[in-house]
Amino acid sequence: MIVLKFGGTSVKTAARIKNVANIAAKAAESDPVVVVVSAMGDTTDYLVKLGLQISRSPNKRELDMLLATGEQISIALVAMALNEIGKKAISMTGAQLGILTESVHTTARIVDIKTDGIQRYLDDGYIVIAAGFQGITPEGNITTLGRGGSDTTAVALAAALKARVCDIYTDVNGVYTADPNTVPTARLLKEVAYEEMLELARVGAQVLHPRAVELARKHKLPVRVRNTFAPEAEGTILRGADDMEIYRPVSGVTVDRHQARVAVLQLPDKPGMAGEIFTALAEHHISTDMIIQAFHRDRSVNDITFTIKRDDLEIVQKVMEEVATRVGAAGVLADADVAKISIVGAKLMDTPDVASRMFAELGKQGINIKMISSSDIRISCAISDNDAEKAVRAVHDLFHLDESE
Amino acid sequence: MIVLKFGGTSVKTAARIKNVANIAAKAAESDPVVVVVSAMGDTTDYLVKLGLQISRSPNKRELDMLLATGEQISIALVAMALNEIGKKAISMTGAQLGILTESVHTTARIVDIKTDGIQRYLDDGYIVIAAGFQGITPEGNITTLGRGGSDTTAVALAAALKARVCDIYTDVNGVYTADPNTVPTARLLKEVAYEEMLELARVGAQVLHPRAVELARKHKLPVRVRNTFAPEAEGTILRGADDMEIYRPVSGVTVDRHQARVAVLQLPDKPGMAGEIFTALAEHHISTDMIIQAFHRDRSVNDITFTIKRDDLEIVQKVMEEVATRVGAAGVLADADVAKISIVGAKLMDTPDVASRMFAELGKQGINIKMISSSDIRISCAISDNDAEKAVRAVHDLFHLDESE
Repeated sequence: MIVLKFGGTSVKTAARIKNVANIAAKAAESDPVVVVVSAMGDTTDYLVKLGLQISRSPNKRELDMLLATGEQISIALVAMALNEIGKKAISMTGAQLGILTESVHTTARIVDIKTDGIQRYLDDGYIVIAAGFQGITPEGNITTLGRGGSDTTAVALAAALKARVCDIYTDVNGVYTADPNTVPTARLLKEVAYEEMLELARVGAQVLHPRAVELARKHKLPVRVRNTFAPEAEGTILRGADDMEIYRPVSGVTVDRHQARVAVLQLPDKPGMAGEIFTALAEHHISTDMIIQAFHRDRSVNDITFTIKRDDLEIVQKVMEEVATRVGAAGVLADADVAKISIVGAKLMDTPDVASRMFAELGKQGINIKMISSSDIRISCAISDNDAEKAVRAVHDLFHLDESE
Repeated sequence: MIVLKFGGTSVKTAARIKNVANIAAKAAESDPVVVVVSAMGDTTDYLVKLGLQISRSPNKRELDMLLATGEQISIALVAMALNEIGKKAISMTGAQLGILTESVHTTARIVDIKTDGIQRYLDDGYIVIAAGFQGITPEGNITTLGRGGSDTTAVALAAALKARVCDIYTDVNGVYTADPNTVPTARLLKEVAYEEMLELARVGAQVLHPRAVELARKHKLPVRVRNTFAPEAEGTILRGADDMEIYRPVSGVTVDRHQARVAVLQLPDKPGMAGEIFTALAEHHISTDMIIQAFHRDRSVNDITFTIKRDDLEIVQKVMEEVATRVGAAGVLADADVAKISIVGAKLMDTPDVASRMFAELGKQGINIKMISSSDIRISCAISDNDAEKAVRAVHDLFHLDESE
């Protein structure tokens, strides 16, 4: 069997819902099908606003009760649309699907899926239309899964039902070597490794939520990213790095714009200094990205530098100056002009010269590298935001990402 | 304990929802409280329209799935509003309330209510916010109760929980002796008998659905009709005719405008003639009201006359002419100018001159009576629509309905 998932833009209007029904009906010609849908268009935002009119911090159990209606509306409409074209279809809420979650509201995790109900309908030849994003606690309370919830529902149902593939329908053709708006020669990737997708998703290629990618990786479930509005296209398939058919050191180049950099200078070289900084940031709900602790010429002190979202710069500067004073650091430096360019590849480390070639190319383009960080499958450079587009095009060319595999 | 019910206009906006929360919080100072709410304002109409965009006759199970979201939204918001003012409150859907219905969609009847869940929350000091209009089948499918569904939910919950009273909050002060728009001297009734309310509801005083009145009568449950926007007012209490404190032969005068009258003339006097007529009407979904079969001077034939909605007149005339031809009747007469004026009183029959006084008064006013029909608690006259307002004022005066009890 297969699971198809359609996001909010795919079910935004009656016409689009009919399109979804047609895609599902076609898929059902060859496989038993479960269709997972999100709330229509901006319904969730509308419902949140409604809640905020009542309370500035709505009770979370009640917020889940409220938000869960968004998907309930779309599943009913998709099932109607399938009935209308003569297909047996039935909609099911999170509770009816047996999606059991923790007793945590607005960000619940799925703990189990009782598949007997859904399996019975599949066995009876129904296309099952499943509400994404929602579940139920053992006590019978409605929960929602938080960000990426519908993607997570789709992958979790696919794993529980032993689907051969989970198709995530979105409004792009799949995953590209770079953002086609920045790099006109960007090419659609036929295959992407789960690990690569995690890195790509984190820097803006938001076709699939990292949480769902992680779950797919755990279950070794192939996930295909496809375009609702061009369902004939093949899309991009996600699988394990070792199962990929094509070898390549670099899969894509991504860029994260509108960053900023903050350095806390000459921190005393003693335990707990980094903790002081990042605890203070966490208290203000500031997330950081690249973090570097550099040796200082004077061995008794260290500099710690990190990147943040530019919008957070003002508050971070203030918080860091307090920390600097408290712990006896020399001061705080801020740089509001930062973009992060990254190359991603599951087998990046198998090709040792990839990093040096990237740095050399940036130098050749006259682009100054402000910071460097890397993981097993990613090398990132902080550069000036003004250089971001030039840099991503140059690096895309350097690794011949425009050429077919 | 008590049950409060708020209709769609009472929860139409955030401000009104906060008003509902205040009323419920006040009630909870003296009693355990269950609040039953309808969908906000025009939400149900909006959802129906959404369904009709997908299918001209939407699958009924899916329509129920869709419509049930309307009440789910309002219960969440009311619970949030109560939380916001520091009250323990919890929303419950039809399924969570244990409202079991027949496996019939869009017009399900309640077969049982499993009150243990709701009782536990009441015992724990929660105000329970219950979704009206919806239930669940033994198979776990969501159903809706059809017209008057939320009123029915409120009365059924009140009966199941042995409430001392069920308060129906609406946008009027209660039940009046006549429509105050027509009769400026119309007076609010403190008490109305269930039977009277049934008659009053059927002719336009739509403050409480007949189905809910019937259920309240069955369980001898006192029901109070109150105004959401003037909660300090006493409203009208419904109870059994024998439990009423005040004796009066006539409780109210109602008028049903824009009716029409059709007569099928000189039907052969043999069995099955009335069946022919009303089967044909039923096939066209035409509902009739007053029906009279009169002796004819020629004993071998009968005339059958009935009233309908004026909008149905054209189709009814056509259908009746076909029937007349088929069964050998002499012809069909139509009269598009009809209103029905009725006096209602649970103890009407205890005062034999009530009918004659009504007829005499209409005569004195120069109003011609076209038809008469009566039940145990109602006497109705068909008159010209132009005379309707004059008639209702005259009859209201005749029985001194403006005078306090």
